[in-house]
Formats: sequence, structure tokens, C-alpha cells
Amino acid sequence: MQHVDLQDDIDTVIGCGPIKVWSVVVTVLGDLLQTEETWLSGPVLDRLVGRLGINNQALRVALHRLRRDGWVVTKKRGRAAAHRLTARGWTATEAARPHIYGAGVNGADAVFLVIGAPTIAQIDFEAELPDGAALLTPRSALVAGAMRSTEACLVSRFAPDVLPPWVSDALAPQVMRAEYDELAAAVGRVLSHASPDELWSRVALRLAVLHHWRRLRLRHGAVQELVLSADWEGARARRLVQQALTRLERPDVATLEATIREP
Amino acid sequence: MQHVDLQDDIDTVIGCGPIKVWSVVVTVLGDLLQTEETWLSGPVLDRLVGRLGINNQALRVALHRLRRDGWVVTKKRGRAAAHRLTARGWTATEAARPHIYGAGVNGADAVFLVIGAPTIAQIDFEAELPDGAALLTPRSALVAGAMRSTEACLVSRFAPDVLPPWVSDALAPQVMRAEYDELAAAVGRVLSHASPDELWSRVALRLAVLHHWRRLRLRHGAVQELVLSADWEGARARRLVQQALTRLERPDVATLEATIREP
Repeated sequence: MQHVDLQDDIDTVIGCGPIKVWSVVVTVLGDLLQTEETWLSGPVLDRLVGRLGINNQALRVALHRLRRDGWVVTKKRGRAAAHRLTARGWTATEAARPHIYGAGVNGADAVFLVIGAPTIAQIDFEAELPDGAALLTPRSALVAGAMRSTEACLVSRFAPDVLPPWVSDALAPQVMRAEYDELAAAVGRVLSHASPDELWSRVALRLAVLHHWRRLRLRHGAVQELVLSADWEGARARRLVQQALTRLERPDVATLEATIREP
Repeated sequence: MQHVDLQDDIDTVIGCGPIKVWSVVVTVLGDLLQTEETWLSGPVLDRLVGRLGINNQALRVALHRLRRDGWVVTKKRGRAAAHRLTARGWTATEAARPHIYGAGVNGADAVFLVIGAPTIAQIDFEAELPDGAALLTPRSALVAGAMRSTEACLVSRFAPDVLPPWVSDALAPQVMRAEYDELAAAVGRVLSHASPDELWSRVALRLAVLHHWRRLRLRHGAVQELVLSADWEGARARRLVQQALTRLERPDVATLEATIREP
């Protein structure tokens, strides 16, 4: 019975949103490879994504694409292949880690309100904004971290008294909140069950949770967490995801490799 | 010769902008009547506005309008009339005094940046703003003094690093700067001459300076002085106007009344 419940849990989490195979591979490699020099063998990767409902053919296509786009390197190792992130893939992964694994944001981080001159085109205004900026109106946005005024943009520290609902809605539209809610519910269900004893199930569950969290989290910057209250859906999802990632701890690649060589 | 120079000075100051007679009367009453109960006789008013180039017929029309609009009360006093501000005229005059006579703004006064929801009409956004707000874009404005967020408006304390030129231009368009510059030049010329010995010339010069300063100053709130640098045209004009008003001191109404009864 436990096995059935487990696969149900994995399926429920995986069902929280659309799955892009290449993105799942980036999740897996980014989580398991803790140095730029570590390789993950083809059979281990195949088995892990298999538990997430991805077949070998889809994995091959995804790896091809990731190699072509300069994210993954593959080498032959005996009869099997092994994969690793490129320098570029590693750098991007490192940059994203704080957003994905961090305990939230540093409350001391500043948020700035940016206003575009009425004479510039909306597209030029958006081009002035750093990654992770959240548009409030066609020519105003919130950004986290330092930004200086430019010819086209007035920048003022953001210090509101209260947030009108339309501002909260602009930062976290209902569809985003609903997605975080669905993930939080699925992760809550995982946490309500005993942790799987079996290594591969535990890792698959971890990667399923991590993948959807990463997918949602990388859609926005730190503004939402700095500005919205601690009980908005994204913050609640983060707390549950962190509990799950702690309980379903990251395995050593060496352990996985050793396990798969056993019958 | 001195008399000619003097009338030149008065004419130069008065020529700094269009003159509305009713507005000049409000300037005169607001400056000379220092309590709500004080009356100014018709002959004194007539002589003062006469020195500013306004004839008796125009004054009568202006007083009629001011009575009709509830700003001025007139009573018969012997063969002449006397005029006073109504309670409403007095209240408005009192409210404007700090803007007109003040040494500038309190640097501790806060400025707030207000952003209108993209869904509200521009006219509704403007209706939410307090008097003296300065529009930056169709749905953003700066206001001085406290304002709380509403359903339609996000309010954040304004704390910019630098002001892009388009923001300075929105707060003080070139035409506004040019008007302050012209007044500053005229008042500078007045200050470069000796102060008139003769009472009525001195008062006429004072009222000419005060009138155009008041006309320009009441077009905007405190935002400009709080946000723009101390050397913007309006601040320079204020410094010169204050010197002139100090040198061309306010006369007692009683002194004026006594003087006009002399031959």
C-alpha cells in the first residue's frame, strides 16, 4: 500500500503544472550536482525522470536540446553516458539558488518605485527595468535592490503605508496565487504522510516538489516577498516546500550511482 | 527725477504679468487688513489701485464681483464706502498666508508619490489628489503633506536619488520658470534703487511686487519648493520678494486713512 500512496503523492505534485522535460532535467542537475565538476550518469538521470513520468525518448530529446543550447555537456563513460552542466549552465544555476532554496528574502533589501517619463514608449520603459521588476501600470514598476534614476526613469525608495488591492493584484495575479496554492496543497499532502523509506522514491518526491517550486519561483523576482505580507500564497508555499526539502534530503550523487549498479 | 524712476519701477513690476482687478483687490485687502474686523476706506483703496494703473470704474466692477461672490463686504461710512473681507474671504486669505509670506517650506515636510490604478480614469485619479498636487504623468503625482493610500491610489513616501530633467520640467515648466525669472528681475531692479521716501509710492511698490508673487505662487503647492533645488527660479524669486517686502514694510491702515484726509 505504501508504494501506491507514494506514487500518488509524486503524481499529485507533478500534476501541479505543465512539465517541460528539459526544464525538469535542469532541476535535477541543479539540485544534485553540487560542484561544477560533478557528473551524473545517464542511467541515474533516466531512472529519476522516469519516476516523474518522463520516458527515455523524451529525455534524449531534452538532453539534445540542452547540449545544443549550451547548458549541458555529455561524455561517454563506458557503455553509458554522463552529463554535467556547462560553465554557463552552472553560473545560471548558482545565480538562481538563493531564490529557490533561500529562506525568503532579506527584510533589509530595499524596494524602489520606478516611474517612466510620459514621453518614452512603454517598451523602452520596460527595457530600462532590471530582471524581476514588477509592473504596476504601463509606466510604473517596483524593483528589488538598488536602481538609480536614469534620463527616462525616476526612481524613489518604495515606502507605502498600505497596499491597495490593485497593487497586490499586479504583483501576484490570481492565477499566480492559485498555482502557489495548488503546490502548497500538494506539498502539504506529502508532508502529512511518512517520509518514504526507499531512496529513489524519496528523491523523486523531492525533485517533483522542487521542480514546480522552481518553475513558479523563477517567474518573478524578490519584490513580491519584500512587499506582500508573510501569508501570501507564495510565502506559504515556500514554507511548506522548505519543510519538504529538509525532510526529503538531497542524496549524494555517489550514493545514487552506487545504488543503480546493484541489481 | 526720483518720481519718474519710481513709477518706472512700479510699472515694470506690474508689467510682469496680466492684471485682474478683482485679484489685485484681494491682494491689497489681504495684505493691509491684518484682522477680520478691519475696514479699508474706498478712497484709500482707490488711490492704491490707481497707483497700480487701475481706474475707479474698473475698481467698482471688481468690487461688485467680489461682493457677489461673497469675498468682500461694503458698508457706507459717511460720504464714502469702506470694505472688508467676508468670513470666507478671511479664511482663504489666512490659509494662503504661509505660502505667500513664508520663508519657504519646512524641510521636514514630507512629499509623497501617488500612483493611480491603471483601471481608473485619469480624471478620477486627479479628483483623488489634494490641492497643490503636481502631476508627473497621467497617473502619477507628487503631493506635499500627508496622504493615505486609497482604493484607487498607491501612496509612497517620495525619496528619489536624483531628479531626471523630465520630472523637474513637470514640476516647473519652462513658462513657469520664465515668469518667476521675470518677476525676480523686476524685483531685483526695485531693490537696486533706494526705497521711496513717500508713503504711497512705497505701498504701491510693495503691493505690485506682492500681487505678482501671489499670482504665481498660488498656482502651485509646496511640492516644488520641497523637491526642486534651492536655486530654482521660484526659490530665487521668493528670496528677492521677501527682501522687497521687508524693505517696503506694510503700512498701518490707520496711517493710510489719516494721510488721505490731509490735503
